[in-house]
Amino acid sequence: MIPAAVHPARSTVQSFIDVRSRSTGFCAPLETEDYVPQVASFASPPKWHLAHTTWFFEEMVLKKHLPDYQEFDSDFSFLFNSYYQSVGKRADRARRGDMTRPTVDRVKAYRIHVDQQMQLLLEQSSKSLEELVVLGLNHEQQHQELMISDLKYAFFQNPLFPVYADDADLTAQYNPPVDQPWVGMDEGIYEIGHRGDGFCFDNELGRHKVYLHQFSIANKLVTNGEYLEFLEVGGYDQFQYWLDEGWSWVQQEEASHPLYWKKQNDTWYQYTLAGLKPLDLDAILCHVSYYEANAFAHWKGLRLPTEFEWEAASAQFKWGDRWEWCESAYLPYPGFEIAPGALGEYNGKFMVNQMVLRGASSATSPGHSRSTYRNFFHPYFRWQFSGIRLVQ
Amino acid sequence: MIPAAVHPARSTVQSFIDVRSRSTGFCAPLETEDYVPQVASFASPPKWHLAHTTWFFEEMVLKKHLPDYQEFDSDFSFLFNSYYQSVGKRADRARRGDMTRPTVDRVKAYRIHVDQQMQLLLEQSSKSLEELVVLGLNHEQQHQELMISDLKYAFFQNPLFPVYADDADLTAQYNPPVDQPWVGMDEGIYEIGHRGDGFCFDNELGRHKVYLHQFSIANKLVTNGEYLEFLEVGGYDQFQYWLDEGWSWVQQEEASHPLYWKKQNDTWYQYTLAGLKPLDLDAILCHVSYYEANAFAHWKGLRLPTEFEWEAASAQFKWGDRWEWCESAYLPYPGFEIAPGALGEYNGKFMVNQMVLRGASSATSPGHSRSTYRNFFHPYFRWQFSGIRLVQ
Amino acid sequence: MIPAAVHPARSTVQSFIDVRSRSTGFCAPLETEDYVPQVASFASPPKWHLAHTTWFFEEMVLKKHLPDYQEFDSDFSFLFNSYYQSVGKRADRARRGDMTRPTVDRVKAYRIHVDQQMQLLLEQSSKSLEELVVLGLNHEQQHQELMISDLKYAFFQNPLFPVYADDADLTAQYNPPVDQPWVGMDEGIYEIGHRGDGFCFDNELGRHKVYLHQFSIANKLVTNGEYLEFLEVGGYDQFQYWLDEGWSWVQQEEASHPLYWKKQNDTWYQYTLAGLKPLDLDAILCHVSYYEANAFAHWKGLRLPTEFEWEAASAQFKWGDRWEWCESAYLPYPGFEIAPGALGEYNGKFMVNQMVLRGASSATSPGHSRSTYRNFFHPYFRWQFSGIRLVQ
Amino acid sequence: MIPAAVHPARSTVQSFIDVRSRSTGFCAPLETEDYVPQVASFASPPKWHLAHTTWFFEEMVLKKHLPDYQEFDSDFSFLFNSYYQSVGKRADRARRGDMTRPTVDRVKAYRIHVDQQMQLLLEQSSKSLEELVVLGLNHEQQHQELMISDLKYAFFQNPLFPVYADDADLTAQYNPPVDQPWVGMDEGIYEIGHRGDGFCFDNELGRHKVYLHQFSIANKLVTNGEYLEFLEVGGYDQFQYWLDEGWSWVQQEEASHPLYWKKQNDTWYQYTLAGLKPLDLDAILCHVSYYEANAFAHWKGLRLPTEFEWEAASAQFKWGDRWEWCESAYLPYPGFEIAPGALGEYNGKFMVNQMVLRGASSATSPGHSRSTYRNFFHPYFRWQFSGIRLVQ
Repeated sequence: MIPAAVHPARSTVQSFIDVRSRSTGFCAPLETEDYVPQVASFASPPKWHLAHTTWFFEEMVLKKHLPDYQEFDSDFSFLFNSYYQSVGKRADRARRGDMTRPTVDRVKAYRIHVDQQMQLLLEQSSKSLEELVVLGLNHEQQHQELMISDLKYAFFQNPLFPVYADDADLTAQYNPPVDQPWVGMDEGIYEIGHRGDGFCFDNELGRHKVYLHQFSIANKLVTNGEYLEFLEVGGYDQFQYWLDEGWSWVQQEEASHPLYWKKQNDTWYQYTLAGLKPLDLDAILCHVSYYEANAFAHWKGLRLPTEFEWEAASAQFKWGDRWEWCESAYLPYPGFEIAPGALGEYNGKFMVNQMVLRGASSATSPGHSRSTYRNFFHPYFRWQFSGIRLVQ
Repeated sequence: MIPAAVHPARSTVQSFIDVRSRSTGFCAPLETEDYVPQVASFASPPKWHLAHTTWFFEEMVLKKHLPDYQEFDSDFSFLFNSYYQSVGKRADRARRGDMTRPTVDRVKAYRIHVDQQMQLLLEQSSKSLEELVVLGLNHEQQHQELMISDLKYAFFQNPLFPVYADDADLTAQYNPPVDQPWVGMDEGIYEIGHRGDGFCFDNELGRHKVYLHQFSIANKLVTNGEYLEFLEVGGYDQFQYWLDEGWSWVQQEEASHPLYWKKQNDTWYQYTLAGLKPLDLDAILCHVSYYEANAFAHWKGLRLPTEFEWEAASAQFKWGDRWEWCESAYLPYPGFEIAPGALGEYNGKFMVNQMVLRGASSATSPGHSRSTYRNFFHPYFRWQFSGIRLVQ
Repeated sequence: MIPAAVHPARSTVQSFIDVRSRSTGFCAPLETEDYVPQVASFASPPKWHLAHTTWFFEEMVLKKHLPDYQEFDSDFSFLFNSYYQSVGKRADRARRGDMTRPTVDRVKAYRIHVDQQMQLLLEQSSKSLEELVVLGLNHEQQHQELMISDLKYAFFQNPLFPVYADDADLTAQYNPPVDQPWVGMDEGIYEIGHRGDGFCFDNELGRHKVYLHQFSIANKLVTNGEYLEFLEVGGYDQFQYWLDEGWSWVQQEEASHPLYWKKQNDTWYQYTLAGLKPLDLDAILCHVSYYEANAFAHWKGLRLPTEFEWEAASAQFKWGDRWEWCESAYLPYPGFEIAPGALGEYNGKFMVNQMVLRGASSATSPGHSRSTYRNFFHPYFRWQFSGIRLVQ
Repeated sequence: MIPAAVHPARSTVQSFIDVRSRSTGFCAPLETEDYVPQVASFASPPKWHLAHTTWFFEEMVLKKHLPDYQEFDSDFSFLFNSYYQSVGKRADRARRGDMTRPTVDRVKAYRIHVDQQMQLLLEQSSKSLEELVVLGLNHEQQHQELMISDLKYAFFQNPLFPVYADDADLTAQYNPPVDQPWVGMDEGIYEIGHRGDGFCFDNELGRHKVYLHQFSIANKLVTNGEYLEFLEVGGYDQFQYWLDEGWSWVQQEEASHPLYWKKQNDTWYQYTLAGLKPLDLDAILCHVSYYEANAFAHWKGLRLPTEFEWEAASAQFKWGDRWEWCESAYLPYPGFEIAPGALGEYNGKFMVNQMVLRGASSATSPGHSRSTYRNFFHPYFRWQFSGIRLVQ
């Protein structure tokens, strides 16, 4: 099963141990072979995730803050750096699966080495260092979610449809019963962005005011059954519902259903980490692109929320099962500042051509997200656990 | 010379004659051969622009509103429709240059035929028809600007650097003298979107409130000389200034200067429709992509305006020489509604992955733009007359 | 109509006039627009063919052999050279259609200028110069055939299916009646390669012996009707008949019939330079790739001839209507020598990955081919007038 | 070390055990991770080679000839079949590295299962079955060589340059001392093709006569030192030495030296399965493409042998260290016949666009090759142990 969550109230040392062991815990059911391949440029192998998240602590924390730190392997600084930029290097991003060495065992030894040194450091560390460590843990949590979605995508390429674990379906979430299908929101000024002392990413900062006009947002997420209706009326064949680029995407991908759906003998199935399962019509829809979300909303005569509408209303509905596509491009808040050095490359570099998703998903490490959290992906991606909430 | 502008106060009939003859007037210096090729998928040939703008009036106006209208050629309805959607057809968008027939002369005859019938209709037409005609004229003005930028791009492929007309430079605009380099704008609620009776496109409608925080916007546009400094400090070689996708674009395009710049024997030149000219350092910068605009602003420690900041402040500075890149993705206003039928495909279909440009350019048909006008292009495009205004 | 042929016995001056005027004669029915586009990298525009063949005489003959020759335009030496090699330049090979200038009229003036100077030179010229001129004329004849096949391919992209000339079908050839369907050839030593004083290309030289085993070669070429049977039994759907690369080609091109065939309302048509015509089942098959030729032969339980078998037997059957695909790769004869300088790039550079075709076609300039002539193309090409002769 | 060779005189059972255990022996030094990735479409993972060679015996032998044979896993018949043809399936050829399951251990169990059943069958088998088994063993030997070259190519992608085994260099072969640098061969008729009772592939059959003109063939293969001279005179920068397609290949690949060569601090190194080693100038050149072989010969004023010249002269010189590129395209011999069924897809399917290599290499399973053996690859491939022998 997907390992349990980090308790947010724990000490940094304890959080460190919890988050770090959750990564290795997730890998426990894997065979050595499963750690290796990169089946698409966007889907890194588990071995790389394990190593890269460790690299963060070695490179950003231990080398700078632990006197006399002995690095584990001088090649790793280069091999597991996702940030370093040059033409040649960038090409390598898509070829992480070609590196069979270092082996999985050696990467695990790397983790143990760094974990030991980190615990040494953390026992004596200052508040300022803790901030950096918490950033590293949040970074690792992001990679934990990627490990799940990347593995699912990799296993899906295999005609044998491998089972990761029988209890790891991750798509069997349902909307709770609600009194009203829509939450009405008044016109006016709302405050947006992170507030308070807790951890947040730089892209949530710059709390600021926005003016929202009146809108109603759905209490429930769109279900498989509702989306199936769109398929059955020929939604994927009708240009009128789609953005122009969405329509090109449909043609090029020959898309005719959400990722992981599969029709066999007139029955719909869905691939999950627990194997191929009959499609549950009552479960919340998952693994759609922005193009699909937008087209579905258009077909319904409705639209997607902006990220500001979503955040303003988020206290009124249950969220956390799906990342929810917003009709907002990922752009800086007023007053956004890029951190100096390598950390500055974290979020601001990606502020073009991506759409915002709000919420969290059944694959998100619990405690990792919050109502101000801004996730973002290109509109064509759907290997994340993404869903649809409508607005009218 | 680029033909003179349409007088906005004229009657619809007179406007029709003016706009229509401006298109043919622009083509007067062309050789027959110049009408044919499509050198890039985004740059249609003059022949196609002349025919497609005519098709609009035949298909949307004459066939529906002029009783007993005899269509000019039954093939044209299909050949010059840019909207009709299917896989095969879309591929054709990039292959307009392959069609040598109908000839240029026949397309000119098509224009005369449709113009005559339109004038017949306009003399007797109702108010409601006039709205459609004005839309058609604005559509034609958009294509007039494209004809200019497409021809410039096509001529630039030719190592002979052909001259369209000696007085058609279109890049020799200068900032006016100003008292203050920056215009300060107060925090508060501003109204955005089109107001009043004049013509506007659907994407400007839904006048609404936005909340803006304090900002200062430049009174002047960035000049060639200022941008040259960025080149000279190695701006195109330093990842730190660029968006991640901007950097990929730089690598892939081997971009090292704005489009049309060319260094020969240590001197910078710029290709214009009046031929290759020494780069004028005092003239306003032109033909940069959003990636370049963003990187330049980043290097300056500044940023680009949002489209809302731009519109709120636009009465305070001179604009109209360059389309100005905004740090805003092209998305619907609250209350945006898609018109039914083919006209509905006009703007809403493109609301993803494009950035907004505000203002107008030296290639825009005079009278065509206004402060609420929303132009939009993919961030990598720079064959339009696009420039940079900074915000702090 | 396709202009008549050059009489081989005429003087060099007369041949020069005849060949040169045949090129312009072919272009007489064209509109100015038809001279411009390059619809595929392999299909150059008529304007370029007219200029490049002229460039040969200016660059290789006049500049070197006519004292005080004044070149027509100093840019042309660069613009119309197909041989000059560098990365940038090679890319231009596919972009000849982007150059609208020089205009067609200026290219025609170029021809007149060069023709006048050539006639001046020829009246006083030596034997050794004549050889070079004859090479230039054979070069121009090759381009005449390309002009025909390139124009056919370009017109075919146009949904209007333009007519070049009503009497220019070029596909309505028929097998003559024969006594025996097969010509039997004895095992033994045969001599291969050019003999005698007449003109030939360097790749025909090195007359040499080959040992052939017994074979029978068809007296008739495969007809449209015979090939249609292959379609009707599902030949394009059955991997077993195809070379592995041929099968990939079928998949990638979605090939299901020869180039220019088109089924409308259950009737087969064929595009010709005289327009779209019902498929004539008795006419000789045309416009097939080597992959198709090989698969058809395989389906018949037969094979294609080697180029040596073809040449050895060629006196026994009628040929000249189609280029005939041979089961021989284009490789040097024993003793093949590459000419020094630019002329050396003529044939030897292409001796890899191409298959030999023997014969001539209905689009070949009469008098241009001979039984030792070695034509060659990549196996996927079929825009030439290529057909199938079988061997058992 | 690369496991020792199969003794050709042994019984079929013994040969079976020897060949089969050589495959697993080769894999002994590998880590589990090394069995997984496919770093290029042409380079299959060791796991796949182990499984596919086993599949041959299960599918072609056991299922058809061993009564009551229980197949190991019903999925394997599909997963490890390289022949089965359809669009979707073919795409999979490049994605063998995406399949982490079945695991390496399960594939090894598959081998043991099949080996046991095969030995059972072989003890009672007829002569006719033995032929099929010998074909399977030769098939496996071909895959053994591919396993070596594929692994070398895969390891080379890793910046750590992994060592397979310290004694597995495979490039340190030297020309023996010879009396005469050239072997002269007389003009006349020679017999080509396989003769006698021993095993051969279908493409060697059809022993036939060829007529060869006088030639001299080098007694020695080209060395690293000789080839380095070509580099040092700028051979990769000069169009004149290259075939037209060879030159395109040089540009596209940015090729400037043989595969696996690497210059560091002005010293040339070569990657081998024993790690990165200084380039040995006296050793025989390895890992060149046909384009490079042809250009080198051209630069020398010489040429490559045809496959017929090579075979006719092969008794006169030592061969077996490198596959030697021939100036012959891979085409059928007169009388070539395609075997019925799946076995017929073995060789004849590839008879277009490939060049012949003769000999054997230091990576060939000893006893596998013979002087009539026809190897073949596309001219751009160089991950095999290919070298150059010159002819004048």
